[in-house]
Amino acid sequence: MDDLLERLRAGLPAEALITDPDVTASYGNDMASFCAAGTPAVVVLPRSVEQVQHVMRTATALRVPVVPQGARTGLSGAANASDGCIVLSLTKMDRILEISPVDRIAVVEPGVVNAVLSRAVGEHGLYYPPDPSSWEMCTIGGNIGTASGGLCCVKYGVTAEYVLGLTVVLADGRLLKTGRRTAKGVAGYDLTRLFVGSEGSLGIVVEAVLALRPQPPAQLVLAAEFPSAAAACDAVCAIMERGHTPSLLEIMDRTTVRAVNKLANMGLPETTEALLLAAFDTPDPGADLAAVGTLCEAAGASEVVPADTVAESELLLQARRMSLTALETVKSATMIDDVCVPRSKLGAMIEGTAAIAEKYDLTIGVCAHAGDGNTHPVVCFDHLDPDESRRARESFDEIMALGLELGGTITGEHGVGVLKKEWLARELGPVSLELQRGIKQTFDPLGILNPGKLF
Amino acid sequence: MDDLLERLRAGLPAEALITDPDVTASYGNDMASFCAAGTPAVVVLPRSVEQVQHVMRTATALRVPVVPQGARTGLSGAANASDGCIVLSLTKMDRILEISPVDRIAVVEPGVVNAVLSRAVGEHGLYYPPDPSSWEMCTIGGNIGTASGGLCCVKYGVTAEYVLGLTVVLADGRLLKTGRRTAKGVAGYDLTRLFVGSEGSLGIVVEAVLALRPQPPAQLVLAAEFPSAAAACDAVCAIMERGHTPSLLEIMDRTTVRAVNKLANMGLPETTEALLLAAFDTPDPGADLAAVGTLCEAAGASEVVPADTVAESELLLQARRMSLTALETVKSATMIDDVCVPRSKLGAMIEGTAAIAEKYDLTIGVCAHAGDGNTHPVVCFDHLDPDESRRARESFDEIMALGLELGGTITGEHGVGVLKKEWLARELGPVSLELQRGIKQTFDPLGILNPGKLF
Repeated sequence: MDDLLERLRAGLPAEALITDPDVTASYGNDMASFCAAGTPAVVVLPRSVEQVQHVMRTATALRVPVVPQGARTGLSGAANASDGCIVLSLTKMDRILEISPVDRIAVVEPGVVNAVLSRAVGEHGLYYPPDPSSWEMCTIGGNIGTASGGLCCVKYGVTAEYVLGLTVVLADGRLLKTGRRTAKGVAGYDLTRLFVGSEGSLGIVVEAVLALRPQPPAQLVLAAEFPSAAAACDAVCAIMERGHTPSLLEIMDRTTVRAVNKLANMGLPETTEALLLAAFDTPDPGADLAAVGTLCEAAGASEVVPADTVAESELLLQARRMSLTALETVKSATMIDDVCVPRSKLGAMIEGTAAIAEKYDLTIGVCAHAGDGNTHPVVCFDHLDPDESRRARESFDEIMALGLELGGTITGEHGVGVLKKEWLARELGPVSLELQRGIKQTFDPLGILNPGKLF
Repeated sequence: MDDLLERLRAGLPAEALITDPDVTASYGNDMASFCAAGTPAVVVLPRSVEQVQHVMRTATALRVPVVPQGARTGLSGAANASDGCIVLSLTKMDRILEISPVDRIAVVEPGVVNAVLSRAVGEHGLYYPPDPSSWEMCTIGGNIGTASGGLCCVKYGVTAEYVLGLTVVLADGRLLKTGRRTAKGVAGYDLTRLFVGSEGSLGIVVEAVLALRPQPPAQLVLAAEFPSAAAACDAVCAIMERGHTPSLLEIMDRTTVRAVNKLANMGLPETTEALLLAAFDTPDPGADLAAVGTLCEAAGASEVVPADTVAESELLLQARRMSLTALETVKSATMIDDVCVPRSKLGAMIEGTAAIAEKYDLTIGVCAHAGDGNTHPVVCFDHLDPDESRRARESFDEIMALGLELGGTITGEHGVGVLKKEWLARELGPVSLELQRGIKQTFDPLGILNPGKLF
């Protein structure tokens, strides 16, 4: 321990090291509930690539585990400390190094906050789509590590699709460049994509080249009330089958709607069983909303209300964005699932989740990136009640089993971390798992990078 | 050899095996010039996953190299046989297994021809964008192996962005499933993307889940003549900087225009130094073409001609699509390069290529997916003239060096194969190369999958 600190100090300024146990303990975990977290030996906040290299060389020399962290807004425990580890917080490497409107790229350090980048490129008429709910806090490095999604994905895809190239400090401190600054490129295996979603287990991202798009027009949102989740899912399928390209297509169930109203007095319709939000950022969003409104009515919507203004639309989006936070107030604790199924199975997934809630006598609110088939069932329970806690955990697992049964995945965008390790093995199967471990071994032969996560 | 055939026959129907040396020799190479190719021991044309597994088990048992092939339209020698190998042609596994308009996916075998799939999904109002020039012949399996691009990429991206999940037969015959049928998913390392562009060196793709889009409106094309390639590149940068989203943005230089006219009497303007083609498949393509036309004039275009009809537009696209074929008629042989640079460096790349042509006293025609910065300099030479052949090879290499110098890549879409092996090492550098080899070792410890390619 003394040796570790001494070696770290040799290549780092004093302000980059935190050793006060009260402070280091506060870096112990991300926002996932019920994930084990250890106590870090030290927290390092580097400000340069060289400093990151020094940390990794030291860690390799002493065989000390390193847990990279961004804003710790993750929901799977992927950023949780392990005992005696170096927490490597990249939040101070937060410079936007370049924005090029001609090349439609940005070059950034990992600690840049998502919303800061979004606003900065917006000033150039550009758009960085990935927009996780935590976008005002979360960092690009964290987004890359967890391959995060958001509300925009139904039209614009996920973080992975916006990462063109990376600079990575490897476990032993060597520097790796992957990918490119160009729009296309196929030189060798796609290492860039391998790092996206690898949860810090293969290397430390210290710079990223990101693809940008032209800023689209502001989106206009429609809200439709349905007498059942199944009817809302039918509408989702009809919208996508007819070839529409909404910029957002979300479902909030009754539990979610009521929780949001209670938290923020949003005036959402409490009698609805499922509220569908659809948005378009096309040249004529009114026409698109009208067409989608007709499809909603055909699927049984009791009420279809297109927003007239961007401000009204923004209010509806705010309601959707606070869903998880609102559901957290229903009981003393929550477990947030993240199952993604083929769009055509969305109805079966949401109905099946309701059946699981009934079976376990629990409140499970569901909000969903419906256009992507990505549901977030939120199990609400009293964590001081051991029996309810047990039922919560069992229902959480049963929801994942249902997702796999429907041809889906245990995680659409939140990642595996500590929370879903056993389930990852179940989804991947032994052949894939063996190869994934082989890749891990190639990049991190000593196993010092974020150990205990993913596998 | 007898042992090999005997073992193969034990698990394959007679018609799946070709041993006649005259026929097997015809499977020796793809469409790349000047790439070494060996003589296969046998050609196998499996019709099922089980048959592919049998081939790979046999190959592993006997340590025989396996070279997977699609339609052999590749341009880098990646499908070239090695001496004594099993050529594994996937062309008979050509079933479209599923098309789902709700989920916007297709599930296909690897031998499905690109254009066949495109037409089949078109009947459902869907669109499979990747459109290499060889789309009437090339297979989806080949497209995945080479990560191929096309004319659509400036708006719709490359093959990699449309591959959601794969079923792969590994070197030892085991079956691997990667990825998903869902719109999103982040469970574990992205093995799907690792296979895309891996040139058959990691496993044999036997099934693919592909993402589809709604069919866009037919595109309308504008042709603009420029007094210099630099002026045309300025127009390209202006178009992209202003936030336009063309569905196609291509440059043909004077050599290319003349070659196309000579081959097919297309009536393209022979006095132009650079012909720019821009297209839009938006709701109001006429308005977009008008805006782009104004930018072209501002950049110095001497003539701007928007097509009035889809038929006229199709004719211009045909001219572009036959560019490589036309350039092949200029001299007895060609070497086709595939350098991609940041869009902002496109002018420097094309001007630099002209300087290289002058230095080596050669004709080098350039057509380019200009919107992506992806140039195809085609070195035309007399292959019976040893000095000209030497100069051709040297200029080919110098073009790649220039691309790297400008922050680009040696291959935007054609791949590495045999043709650019040495250059891959130069682009990647030793750290990346070591990791890439480590991945290869993990998937193919005996090194029997397409040996001698990539590295």
